[in-house]
Amino acid sequence: MSPPTDLPEMEYRFLGRSGLQVSAISLGGWLTYGGHVDREGTFACMKAAYDVGVNFFDCAEVYAKGESEKVMGEAIKKFGWQRNDLVISTKIYWGSAFSTRLVNNIGLSRKHIIEGMNQSLERLQLDYVDLIYAHRPDRNTPMEETVRAFNHLIDIGKALYWGTSEWDADEIAEARHYADKLNLIGPLMEQPRYNMLERLRVESTLAHLLRTPPSLGLTVFSPLRQGILSGKYKSGIPPDSRFAQTQLEFISGFWKRTGKEEFQEMVDTVSKLEPIAERLGVKQSVLALAWVLANKHVSSAITGASSPEQVYENVEALRVYKLLTEEVMGEIDDILGNKPPAVVMRF
Amino acid sequence: MSPPTDLPEMEYRFLGRSGLQVSAISLGGWLTYGGHVDREGTFACMKAAYDVGVNFFDCAEVYAKGESEKVMGEAIKKFGWQRNDLVISTKIYWGSAFSTRLVNNIGLSRKHIIEGMNQSLERLQLDYVDLIYAHRPDRNTPMEETVRAFNHLIDIGKALYWGTSEWDADEIAEARHYADKLNLIGPLMEQPRYNMLERLRVESTLAHLLRTPPSLGLTVFSPLRQGILSGKYKSGIPPDSRFAQTQLEFISGFWKRTGKEEFQEMVDTVSKLEPIAERLGVKQSVLALAWVLANKHVSSAITGASSPEQVYENVEALRVYKLLTEEVMGEIDDILGNKPPAVVMRF
Amino acid sequence: MSPPTDLPEMEYRFLGRSGLQVSAISLGGWLTYGGHVDREGTFACMKAAYDVGVNFFDCAEVYAKGESEKVMGEAIKKFGWQRNDLVISTKIYWGSAFSTRLVNNIGLSRKHIIEGMNQSLERLQLDYVDLIYAHRPDRNTPMEETVRAFNHLIDIGKALYWGTSEWDADEIAEARHYADKLNLIGPLMEQPRYNMLERLRVESTLAHLLRTPPSLGLTVFSPLRQGILSGKYKSGIPPDSRFAQTQLEFISGFWKRTGKEEFQEMVDTVSKLEPIAERLGVKQSVLALAWVLANKHVSSAITGASSPEQVYENVEALRVYKLLTEEVMGEIDDILGNKPPAVVMRF
Amino acid sequence: MSPPTDLPEMEYRFLGRSGLQVSAISLGGWLTYGGHVDREGTFACMKAAYDVGVNFFDCAEVYAKGESEKVMGEAIKKFGWQRNDLVISTKIYWGSAFSTRLVNNIGLSRKHIIEGMNQSLERLQLDYVDLIYAHRPDRNTPMEETVRAFNHLIDIGKALYWGTSEWDADEIAEARHYADKLNLIGPLMEQPRYNMLERLRVESTLAHLLRTPPSLGLTVFSPLRQGILSGKYKSGIPPDSRFAQTQLEFISGFWKRTGKEEFQEMVDTVSKLEPIAERLGVKQSVLALAWVLANKHVSSAITGASSPEQVYENVEALRVYKLLTEEVMGEIDDILGNKPPAVVMRF
Repeated sequence: MSPPTDLPEMEYRFLGRSGLQVSAISLGGWLTYGGHVDREGTFACMKAAYDVGVNFFDCAEVYAKGESEKVMGEAIKKFGWQRNDLVISTKIYWGSAFSTRLVNNIGLSRKHIIEGMNQSLERLQLDYVDLIYAHRPDRNTPMEETVRAFNHLIDIGKALYWGTSEWDADEIAEARHYADKLNLIGPLMEQPRYNMLERLRVESTLAHLLRTPPSLGLTVFSPLRQGILSGKYKSGIPPDSRFAQTQLEFISGFWKRTGKEEFQEMVDTVSKLEPIAERLGVKQSVLALAWVLANKHVSSAITGASSPEQVYENVEALRVYKLLTEEVMGEIDDILGNKPPAVVMRF
Repeated sequence: MSPPTDLPEMEYRFLGRSGLQVSAISLGGWLTYGGHVDREGTFACMKAAYDVGVNFFDCAEVYAKGESEKVMGEAIKKFGWQRNDLVISTKIYWGSAFSTRLVNNIGLSRKHIIEGMNQSLERLQLDYVDLIYAHRPDRNTPMEETVRAFNHLIDIGKALYWGTSEWDADEIAEARHYADKLNLIGPLMEQPRYNMLERLRVESTLAHLLRTPPSLGLTVFSPLRQGILSGKYKSGIPPDSRFAQTQLEFISGFWKRTGKEEFQEMVDTVSKLEPIAERLGVKQSVLALAWVLANKHVSSAITGASSPEQVYENVEALRVYKLLTEEVMGEIDDILGNKPPAVVMRF
Repeated sequence: MSPPTDLPEMEYRFLGRSGLQVSAISLGGWLTYGGHVDREGTFACMKAAYDVGVNFFDCAEVYAKGESEKVMGEAIKKFGWQRNDLVISTKIYWGSAFSTRLVNNIGLSRKHIIEGMNQSLERLQLDYVDLIYAHRPDRNTPMEETVRAFNHLIDIGKALYWGTSEWDADEIAEARHYADKLNLIGPLMEQPRYNMLERLRVESTLAHLLRTPPSLGLTVFSPLRQGILSGKYKSGIPPDSRFAQTQLEFISGFWKRTGKEEFQEMVDTVSKLEPIAERLGVKQSVLALAWVLANKHVSSAITGASSPEQVYENVEALRVYKLLTEEVMGEIDDILGNKPPAVVMRF
Repeated sequence: MSPPTDLPEMEYRFLGRSGLQVSAISLGGWLTYGGHVDREGTFACMKAAYDVGVNFFDCAEVYAKGESEKVMGEAIKKFGWQRNDLVISTKIYWGSAFSTRLVNNIGLSRKHIIEGMNQSLERLQLDYVDLIYAHRPDRNTPMEETVRAFNHLIDIGKALYWGTSEWDADEIAEARHYADKLNLIGPLMEQPRYNMLERLRVESTLAHLLRTPPSLGLTVFSPLRQGILSGKYKSGIPPDSRFAQTQLEFISGFWKRTGKEEFQEMVDTVSKLEPIAERLGVKQSVLALAWVLANKHVSSAITGASSPEQVYENVEALRVYKLLTEEVMGEIDDILGNKPPAVVMRF
């Protein structure tokens, strides 16, 4: 299956203050590959992504208990892509899923960072990853230990750059402090959740680190808020199917965490975006992804896809984000009603 | 043989200022594995320990002239335990036992640290240990050489953390000084002898290093003072047997070193603890181990065991130490009469 | 084929502030080996060069899309030269030619420096190169990243020294700044284009870095301005042949870049040098090469050669440059009319 | 052949400020192994030395054009000595002897240090040496390059310690300066020529570095001034034999370098020491070696030996140097008439 001929060209963006370029749209294994998308389906999605210019494939040791790394590694081998055409990432923290005992297979101790990296590379069948992320902060491990351990991975050639995921600004600042103090390499990029419904971290908490040099790189996940922003929940839960089942689980999990009302509120807000999408002649999901790409601090939006069609659809967002004028963005902000202040004032 | 079903759950503690967690009760090879406990017995004890949640197995190049490392390495391989479920340590200093000539096979020169590490890893059949200890201080080797050599082991991936055993506070402070000066990694933990009868080092000499950041980690050995604290000597030397023979040797060695009177005094003191153990409904050995675990600076108490039963018995201490209220501890202090002052006053 | 018996002896010069000595005349693969000079021709030229004492062979990942490295590596293997008799260089930057996709296969990111080096060594069939160059500056990659990555190559033994090619003085100064700040190794040498017609960079822009310690090493390329300085264009384009074809391409490319007039001006200037060459009894190409060697800051002039005869001819320049007295140099300067001021004055 | 039963026990001394101990008497390959002493003879001498407790075997890439390293490496392998029982050294500088071309196979450039080390280890059939020496200073290579390159050897595990041979005090001080500045390891030991007739360097030039911390280690060569101090030249050149031939070459070379008169003067001086040797009941050669060992700054005196008997004889010096009272030393100083002032006064 070949990509549609009228797709916009892939766009590449420098990752923070580095010389590395990542495709603005990237493909992640979370919730899909190694999980509900089977082996052949994964291969098809990854090939479609590669064919439209995606160079960044995102994974984590924890995705599908390691199966995500395995199947993505298989795809890379199967298609014989040149290593220098790819930016492969994985993330270390939640390693416990692959081990019989919890205690040292989680977190950011030197032990887990080194052992987790070795296991990830084995599953991926690679000598090194381009990006290694600390999948969460670990307040139990001293920052110096973590910074040293990630630098050790770089020194021995198992990773080229390191970064963080879902860290707070003060934690990133502390990591930079130890890197500076010890003449080591600091974290290059952060991977937060970012979408129309979750803006605080990127637009306020991390804003200072993104604006001032050395500017932090940003790869973001969950651009559709796990589907809510596609508008598919506006008429309630979709009919019973294996896929719907996954969503039911998601929604019931969501309800448990945040309450049914909050979910409904979000669905209502999303509905109000429909006219804008219609005006621009795009699906709501494409509008939501485009909105993420319009943030110039975002180096790459990590998308999930269950089929090549979804991959192609996502690429449309590269055309659409250029249509998001200041006026349209203002209109969206008014609907969302969650724009954080550019500068946090202190009284 | 399965562990009793009513054993308390294993407890894990962070090792000093690191992100590494060790089981509060650990198993050591000293005086047992590779020595008077045979191969099958070693396997049985290690399996029992692993099954009750012990993750930290302690060894040294000198234990049973290297046989301890060999048999413990065999066990790890035999049971196929995942490497990230284990915290394996060994210690370098007394290497001379395995070499025909003494001179450079002892101490903390760069030569012995590197060569000793290689030989230990070969005996253990491992690529790396988690913890490498300097088994004693070496005043003949400049501290800078020693600190650099242990960091070299970490840099080349043969050890994850390094520490000391039976070092004085000033020696640890000097090692930290050179680590700081050279931007290297300092010693993380100290392994002193610690039990009801030997409290000075932990509770006074090292107290400052334990209390102030970066807080020193503590793994302790000899919690039963080689059996004296179990109360088994109260009616004199036990009947003739191979095991008793070992103890006779121990006692006569002890008499030679410290005098028969001192031994008798200790036995008498220990007798006075019997009523407390009875009141708590536990063996005296369990009380003694629990007393060690009650010290919050202790990350792990390294126990010896000749049988799975002993392993299970030791785990009881995890329940018992929580029964040691301030009142009970005061009672014990009164009997022991050896509580060092919390702060050493200088006049 | 043996070298003529009356050739001057090879001269070796220290490369900048290093202890490495390179032959004053070296052989480069640019535009020749792997390209219009075939395999056997390359072997013949390299052997001729080696036989007359050339020890420095210059290459780049981009020359002939990697074919240059391959054939030069083959020659080194074929002739069984001892590795310590050779100074082998390559250059990283324009790697995209060997990859299906452009984005990360170009420039001086950590990714391309590491991946490019690995691929070059594979093509060269070597464990390490002596000199690794950054083939161009990369303003998109932070200098710290580039300096660290080249030092990484040195640390892991894949290169002995690193330098730059066609960098500006401020870029070299910035690289030195980061090397100093991080206690790393700075760039040792620069490889600019340098010949009678292009003097500004070496004689003015870089002059300060060449004169003051730590003095920058200089290896220069294009000593004949791609043939213009040989005087062969004075009677117009040479007759039609495969070689002429290449030159026609060169000339038409040149016209496109700088205009036909500028080319004719150069040809005219070069004609005026003919009487000097005749007086010294040498070909104009030898005079031009000798003029480059007369600059004491030049450690090596990288020459191209399509035949052993050209190699031998180039060596003549070692004799000739000693004939270039202050008077002759003045005469040449008057003809060229492009001598930059020794010190740039600021008003 | 077993060592005589009444030999004094070997003495071990710390090498400078390190934790490494070397036998006070060591065995060197210079002028003997790989040269005029054949393979079997080398094996016999090395075994004799090992049997009397010598642990330090000294070599250099240049000794017998590499044959010395080869045969000594063979011996180590043949006898199956444990690596940790041995202190093996070699020296880098004069590598040119093994290469067809001189230019980069000599000196202390990064290139020669790395390539020379690799070749020495191959000849020695070892993974690493204990001590690597810079065989001479190299004023053409910046000290920073040399210090970094020796540290590189230590970092990659090919050497444990590095030092110098025949360097001046200012050169050692400069090396220390760069090591300190860059947080690297400085040179540990110097290997000068030292004997009754050549005292200036050890007793005056280097005196300050030996006396003040970090005290420089000292291994010395040529304790018998190539045989002159044995007294064997007192009745003229010994009768014609293959061994005598070597000496004739030595003497004629000596005459060429320093003049026949100076040689005769030395022989005369040495004759005057005969009564002291007789009084102590030892050969003059043993007295000369004992005199070197009496200098407490000397960690090891490197001796040459053509037969096991000579090895045993040398060991006698360990007994004899303890007989060299202040009075006897004064007597010797009076005869030699070359004692340098302890402190160089400046006016």
